[in-house]
Amino acid sequence: MVRIGIYGYGNLGRGVENAIKQNSDMQLVAVFSRRDPATVKINTAGVKVLKVDEAEKMVEEIDVMIICGGSATDLPEQTPALAKLFNVVDSFDTHARIPEHFDNVDKAAKLSGKVAMISVGWDPGMFSLNRLYGGAILPDGKDYTFWGKGVSQGHSDAIRRVEGVADGKQYTVPVQAALDAVRSGSNPELTTREKHTRECFVVAKDGADKAAIEAEIKSMPNYFADYDTTVNFISQEELNTNHAGIPHGGFVIRSGKTGASLENNHIIEYSLKLDSNPEFTASVIVCFARATARMSSEGMSGCKTVFDVPPAYLSAKSAEELRKELL
Amino acid sequence: MVRIGIYGYGNLGRGVENAIKQNSDMQLVAVFSRRDPATVKINTAGVKVLKVDEAEKMVEEIDVMIICGGSATDLPEQTPALAKLFNVVDSFDTHARIPEHFDNVDKAAKLSGKVAMISVGWDPGMFSLNRLYGGAILPDGKDYTFWGKGVSQGHSDAIRRVEGVADGKQYTVPVQAALDAVRSGSNPELTTREKHTRECFVVAKDGADKAAIEAEIKSMPNYFADYDTTVNFISQEELNTNHAGIPHGGFVIRSGKTGASLENNHIIEYSLKLDSNPEFTASVIVCFARATARMSSEGMSGCKTVFDVPPAYLSAKSAEELRKELL
Repeated sequence: MVRIGIYGYGNLGRGVENAIKQNSDMQLVAVFSRRDPATVKINTAGVKVLKVDEAEKMVEEIDVMIICGGSATDLPEQTPALAKLFNVVDSFDTHARIPEHFDNVDKAAKLSGKVAMISVGWDPGMFSLNRLYGGAILPDGKDYTFWGKGVSQGHSDAIRRVEGVADGKQYTVPVQAALDAVRSGSNPELTTREKHTRECFVVAKDGADKAAIEAEIKSMPNYFADYDTTVNFISQEELNTNHAGIPHGGFVIRSGKTGASLENNHIIEYSLKLDSNPEFTASVIVCFARATARMSSEGMSGCKTVFDVPPAYLSAKSAEELRKELL
Repeated sequence: MVRIGIYGYGNLGRGVENAIKQNSDMQLVAVFSRRDPATVKINTAGVKVLKVDEAEKMVEEIDVMIICGGSATDLPEQTPALAKLFNVVDSFDTHARIPEHFDNVDKAAKLSGKVAMISVGWDPGMFSLNRLYGGAILPDGKDYTFWGKGVSQGHSDAIRRVEGVADGKQYTVPVQAALDAVRSGSNPELTTREKHTRECFVVAKDGADKAAIEAEIKSMPNYFADYDTTVNFISQEELNTNHAGIPHGGFVIRSGKTGASLENNHIIEYSLKLDSNPEFTASVIVCFARATARMSSEGMSGCKTVFDVPPAYLSAKSAEELRKELL
């Protein structure tokens, strides 16, 4: 049994809780929250909810702490701090800051002798693995990553900050023509605008200037200005009914060449179509938590990523079963 | 530099030779053949061709021997024998006999202290890895593997053994409706016939009974009887012009559910579209040869599979570069 703690109980924490129930060798021991534990209702009978500052009392009870905080401000603090006490897994997803996060976490985990697995999920995570495998197999080639169709939390938040907007949701949509061009093996150079469009569903406040809202969204730097963006005004009821989910997905494609004169083309494509982004991320995290426990029990320590994990360690099956059933 | 020997110089061996040229940290040292070396012309200047029985003289010159024999009779003998002398990689692909092959190779490699990586390629190989990752992430789900569209060597050989057949080629073709049903998340139960069709291009000998050839192919047990098979008679010229390549590919799809009441569906799809089956297999083998050398230099020994390899070991990039560029 791998005994798990969940640190932070939002969408991701709830997803981890559900995923643990799907794995008979994993057991949830405690949920840690910044909120008053009396106000936090969890879905697993008999499991305690504790304040985050009670974590250090639980070092003997927990094999792996899964940290479900946000990448902007939570994880840069929480992961190094908790790696001093526990084996940990996080889903740190600010790609540009991964090297810095790795160094901070590595220092802490080497001191404590724990294994700290960072940036687990699907991107970073499974998409990263597929970029690595694809590039190692086909060194003469090119990587393409497309996201969507799916809800971008950051872009939805940006819409909701626009004056006159009551609520809103943004979908990132890969452009079919770009996908087709990549799959053809032509190795196209694609601009930001050519790869994705952005589709917004916006609830305007009563009396708000819709034209002004649309113009402000479409011209927003970093978020929308570099994309073909469509803005659809809908009612709050329609938003609640038709856009309540958190679907996502995407594609990692490696297009590469082999042969004496590089005359043969090969396309490797990995794609995800996810009804629930946080639940899928949680499912990835939970199997990497299993690997984290195994790597720790073998005496490893320090910061690790998905690139360091022998795939067999992710599965509850034995090496013999894996070879017999899946190889 | 990883110094490579190629043992067996057919389509796969030639593919390995080409792939080594695409990897600047790999170097071809020698090609071993059962043929008279004077008759074997290779594509790499300055590399010697030796008789297979000269391999043991080369133990100091070679870091990894890549064994390019066939699975039916060559590899069960060659891999254990060579693992007594070298780190080795093979592409043993008789799925049902992998456990037995593993045991034989493991014994030899443990005695010699070498690393012997078996069953490397795309199926077994990359498809196996994707079955493992998919099942570990989504334990409540179902695996589907489809092959094609591509040339099956075994089925093409079977056609050519039919009386009255001068030449022939067989394509395995996945059924689009079956793929669509799997992608919908409905987790269908699919029969052999529902998943693939078999398309044959046959050159009949002069005066041969085409109706008899067609009937014999379509009713051939194991190979064709369980499939919807089409037989097209064409000329030798047409076969040579339009069916000279060895393309292949396929799909591994994991369809699984998450959530408190398993209400959310997820589709993970990995697909390959390959102009040259042997060259792609060779490209996979070469990056696993790099990993084999690294694992050996770290003191590991025994039989290993793709499931045992930390993905970072496959790449020529450093761990820092991988985290910065691909994570």
